[in-house]
Amino acid sequence: MQQKMTLKRLAAVLGVHSSTVGRVMDPQTRHMVSEEVAERILREAALHGYRPNKIAAALRTRRSNIVGVMLPDITNPVFPPILLGIEDALRKQGYVAIVANAGEDRAQQRFVVDQLLARQVDALILATATRDDAILDYCLASGVTTVTVNRGEDTRRVSSVVNDEVEGMRLAVDHLAQLGHRHIVHLAGSQDLSTGHLRREGFMTAMAAHGLQEEALCIVDCSSYSREAGRLACETVLARYPGATAILAANDLLALGCYDSLRAHGLRCPQDMSVVGHNDMPFADLVDPPLTTIRIRHHEMGVQAAQLILRRLQDDPVGEMEIRLKPELVLRGSSAAPRAGAAGLRAAAAA
Amino acid sequence: MQQKMTLKRLAAVLGVHSSTVGRVMDPQTRHMVSEEVAERILREAALHGYRPNKIAAALRTRRSNIVGVMLPDITNPVFPPILLGIEDALRKQGYVAIVANAGEDRAQQRFVVDQLLARQVDALILATATRDDAILDYCLASGVTTVTVNRGEDTRRVSSVVNDEVEGMRLAVDHLAQLGHRHIVHLAGSQDLSTGHLRREGFMTAMAAHGLQEEALCIVDCSSYSREAGRLACETVLARYPGATAILAANDLLALGCYDSLRAHGLRCPQDMSVVGHNDMPFADLVDPPLTTIRIRHHEMGVQAAQLILRRLQDDPVGEMEIRLKPELVLRGSSAAPRAGAAGLRAAAAA
Repeated sequence: MQQKMTLKRLAAVLGVHSSTVGRVMDPQTRHMVSEEVAERILREAALHGYRPNKIAAALRTRRSNIVGVMLPDITNPVFPPILLGIEDALRKQGYVAIVANAGEDRAQQRFVVDQLLARQVDALILATATRDDAILDYCLASGVTTVTVNRGEDTRRVSSVVNDEVEGMRLAVDHLAQLGHRHIVHLAGSQDLSTGHLRREGFMTAMAAHGLQEEALCIVDCSSYSREAGRLACETVLARYPGATAILAANDLLALGCYDSLRAHGLRCPQDMSVVGHNDMPFADLVDPPLTTIRIRHHEMGVQAAQLILRRLQDDPVGEMEIRLKPELVLRGSSAAPRAGAAGLRAAAAA
Repeated sequence: MQQKMTLKRLAAVLGVHSSTVGRVMDPQTRHMVSEEVAERILREAALHGYRPNKIAAALRTRRSNIVGVMLPDITNPVFPPILLGIEDALRKQGYVAIVANAGEDRAQQRFVVDQLLARQVDALILATATRDDAILDYCLASGVTTVTVNRGEDTRRVSSVVNDEVEGMRLAVDHLAQLGHRHIVHLAGSQDLSTGHLRREGFMTAMAAHGLQEEALCIVDCSSYSREAGRLACETVLARYPGATAILAANDLLALGCYDSLRAHGLRCPQDMSVVGHNDMPFADLVDPPLTTIRIRHHEMGVQAAQLILRRLQDDPVGEMEIRLKPELVLRGSSAAPRAGAAGLRAAAAA
């Protein structure tokens, strides 16, 4: 075994002051040393098996400066902007996010939480929360600071940063009602999730405000927030509600699945069926037709969640809270006034 | 200060066998204990400030079971599938990925590498590599196992998992040439990146194979792989090459930017201009018109990169290598035979 290398010995070998080595060994201060010198010191340090050892510091301080972020589905384009917001806020204070993509399966989520806790994350940001979340029990039992983002729990026992879902559905229903739609079908997300539940509640409230609850309260439940689930739900809409002139989907992926189904039936959007999404995910403006949707401020959601975490970690006595961001309606080409007789023709064809 | 809690004391307090506490404290074995008991033990452990301490183990073994992944742009839809592949392969062996989104800026990348190294990552997977990458010097100086994914370095001094870029461009040029296009413009990515450089080289080689190099070797350089850069480049194409009938973009985001520009000029794709992308990113099939593109196997790229890393970490004497995956052409609606006279009309209008 080689002799244990110390910071002082390393400085002597390199002929530099030990404070220079110290600065290079601490990532927080390394920028104070020129890149050339830093590289030379790091190379020599690696040669002697001496590495910047933040882990030892973490062991002393019980702080790792890592925040774990658990996502349900990184292929859903709404999550990258949330992550960007989290990273932007964390980076400003020298924190790094460990991002893990855990899926919706509870056992897998538990495994990922175990992995994150084992890495001594200082805190967790969960984008995976269900309305009654056993994983959250598990996180609280372990004593780690936890905040949920995008989705909240019914109990509100931990802070959350979410969209105002009821307001979003009000905007969407108002828009369709003003265009003259009376037969609007809601594609609902999972009722285990706050987004799915509150958007459905918001739909019913907004329909009632327009006096539409009796005549046309049509809801199709979707198995997941995916394009394929949206395609299947649209098939159900066409079979079950031949009088429908508009579909209001609980998210944009579901709305894009409707496009697939309508196309397969030779139906045009918006002439034969208006479709409104929810999220304004990236590229929603480029699809055919460009998607009318509710814009949710995902980046800001991430920033707020990270700031809550950082205040907690700095022992700021911030209580639990729910931060609810206002959405806005984005008008594009997938919604239009119902064509006189369009639904009637479909109803006749279906009869 | 409370008395230091040990595993044995904790077991005694809870009235369980110490081996049960040991299993719960190790995330790798926690699944062997029922969720209810695990939660009770974790809750009691948290109460006494006793937490599963992987950091102490890491300090002894110098292994953290974390692989750092550095991305240039998480909002580019090609990266989530690469990440999924990396995570899938790592998870099977109990490793976790720390994902950090560093951007293309070198100083920021250096900061992120410092942060990752400070967390004692066992290895790095860089999706950020440039053809001559100073950050890679920096990683090598620190002695950490490093592999690049999606982009490679010219020197090939570290292993990389990439797409066969030259083959991809051959497929795209063959397709356009077979449709009858002679005036094809390439929107080239950054020449500092292997993807940008090799796709440009591949374009020139493929054009020469069709005897098109003399008559129509038209290339527009793009400042970044973004939709906005593609829009600007398409403006240049329309102004500089009025005879062009097809655009072959170095990635899908550039191709989507062409859609924006063509639309603004009242030009139709593919009737007035064929557009072919590169990547087959998610949702490329849903845009208007659906994008003809080169499918790159991003998920598999991630799997291969993670497997290279895992073999290294298991001291498998695997040498440096370049793994090059075969792409395929995906035919959709954005490419068609050039319309007789279409470019001529534009040329006349531009004259």
